[in-house]
Amino acid sequence: MAETIAWVAVDWGTSNLRAWAIGESGVEIASATSDKGMGKLAREQFPDALDEVLGKLGVAERALDIVICGMAGARQGWMEAPYLEAPTDLGGLGQGAVHPAANDQRLRVSILPGVCQRQGGENVMRGEETQLLGLATVSPGYSGLVCMPGTHSKWARLDGTSIMDFATAMTGEMFDLLRTHSVLRHSLVEPLAGEDGDAGFAEGAETGLTNPADLLGQLFRVRAASLLSGKSSAWCAGYLSGLLIGTEIASRRDQIASEPVPLIGSEKLCALYAQVLNMAGAAGRLVNSTEVMLAGLKAARTSLS
Amino acid sequence: MAETIAWVAVDWGTSNLRAWAIGESGVEIASATSDKGMGKLAREQFPDALDEVLGKLGVAERALDIVICGMAGARQGWMEAPYLEAPTDLGGLGQGAVHPAANDQRLRVSILPGVCQRQGGENVMRGEETQLLGLATVSPGYSGLVCMPGTHSKWARLDGTSIMDFATAMTGEMFDLLRTHSVLRHSLVEPLAGEDGDAGFAEGAETGLTNPADLLGQLFRVRAASLLSGKSSAWCAGYLSGLLIGTEIASRRDQIASEPVPLIGSEKLCALYAQVLNMAGAAGRLVNSTEVMLAGLKAARTSLS
Repeated sequence: MAETIAWVAVDWGTSNLRAWAIGESGVEIASATSDKGMGKLAREQFPDALDEVLGKLGVAERALDIVICGMAGARQGWMEAPYLEAPTDLGGLGQGAVHPAANDQRLRVSILPGVCQRQGGENVMRGEETQLLGLATVSPGYSGLVCMPGTHSKWARLDGTSIMDFATAMTGEMFDLLRTHSVLRHSLVEPLAGEDGDAGFAEGAETGLTNPADLLGQLFRVRAASLLSGKSSAWCAGYLSGLLIGTEIASRRDQIASEPVPLIGSEKLCALYAQVLNMAGAAGRLVNSTEVMLAGLKAARTSLS
Repeated sequence: MAETIAWVAVDWGTSNLRAWAIGESGVEIASATSDKGMGKLAREQFPDALDEVLGKLGVAERALDIVICGMAGARQGWMEAPYLEAPTDLGGLGQGAVHPAANDQRLRVSILPGVCQRQGGENVMRGEETQLLGLATVSPGYSGLVCMPGTHSKWARLDGTSIMDFATAMTGEMFDLLRTHSVLRHSLVEPLAGEDGDAGFAEGAETGLTNPADLLGQLFRVRAASLLSGKSSAWCAGYLSGLLIGTEIASRRDQIASEPVPLIGSEKLCALYAQVLNMAGAAGRLVNSTEVMLAGLKAARTSLS
């Protein structure tokens, strides 16, 4: 007979949500996704969206813990879970949770807080702090920089379960903006792919690593190289991606130690970051992002308020 | 009796065109604008668009020189005017002109070439080279950097009528992209204005000047500052504008000499650049952009092929 569901882990982002049904032994029994991200829901629509995903997971018993991280806890989300302020021990994530009412009163819903920073540049995260707690659980005692590539890449300094400080680079969003809406779009009709894409990526990354202060100037080269030198669309897409990632990594270069930087994010994107870290004389280490997400939600559950 | 029209000067850009009817003494008799920019026209629509603007200028006599600079000479424009390649003497702009046929065969249409650069980073300009020739005419013997703020800011090194090299910074387009399409748009609903806008501009410019390599990281502060510190929309718009301009100027800082940098562009934008140049310990000098445009078209006309 299959193990019964003990609790449900949820990563509720702006665009999507992912949920996992977990047994008491910690084993993952089922998983489900939904496009009902925070950005698409009014406050009163969250309980129904949760019920829908519980249905997909096959949850029958309703006296369950639902542990949620991410944008569901934003001011415009289901219920605001006030930020913890860095530096802070992420072991305290559970104590900071808030508890909105579900349709079924037997469900105990907990939304974990995000982390903010006021000293040394205002900054905010919601969701990544749970993965960082998970990383600290999976790699106990790790102390150093962690890179989380994505739409808004996060760079956090971790010391065990404590987050010391962090930064956000709008690298992924910038790539999408430039590809979709800027004058460069004419040179970027195809996706980054093939040999030409690789060559463009390497040249862009080298340019970004060498001259990160001139991003605004180097971007236009995408257009000029396609007009003057007949560079292919794949080359241009590769160059743009490499230039942005190279610039991002160069700006953190002096914080990167000899130990490989844990990379948490999509596997494909993390491989590109690892490549550029190597070009910068450093190294990256790919971490399974789902594994650390679940480890973080599990760790937070043990300390729920 | 009014002076008769001797020739027509046209600045034909991507979005708009501006035209001036000029008398033989060089006096400006009439001016007109149209939204029939190159980006909206198929090749065969250019002659009618020209006739329309000649009508607005009150041109009756058709045995006239029409001297055009800008995107009408691009590959996707009326007729391609192949680039001159920097370094080059802009005194040769007229010799590089091409001559498409107008509806009225008595009109002699000349489209001036743009300038490209292949060494030291591919780059292109169309229209700005004519203003640079005009500046060299209005300020004879000037040698040094020229800044042309705009959607795609140009920074050119001029030596008399020769352009030595140039760069393009996508500063203006980046501001529009981020304000219109990025996550920062939530914090930027109002335009940059008032005391708050000024304070944000100064703080952004200082940040960009100090740390130009971290643009991708500092951008997100717009969002975080509005979420955490309740910064107003005007402050955020000012910060974003200052951050981008500060970053742009910092990346050119080591090329800026003690002599004020000529600034060619919209008066409002040039004033902001002058302010940031001052913050960087340098200086700017506002140049009338219409005056140098007309001076450049006039100088090019004297050497038409």
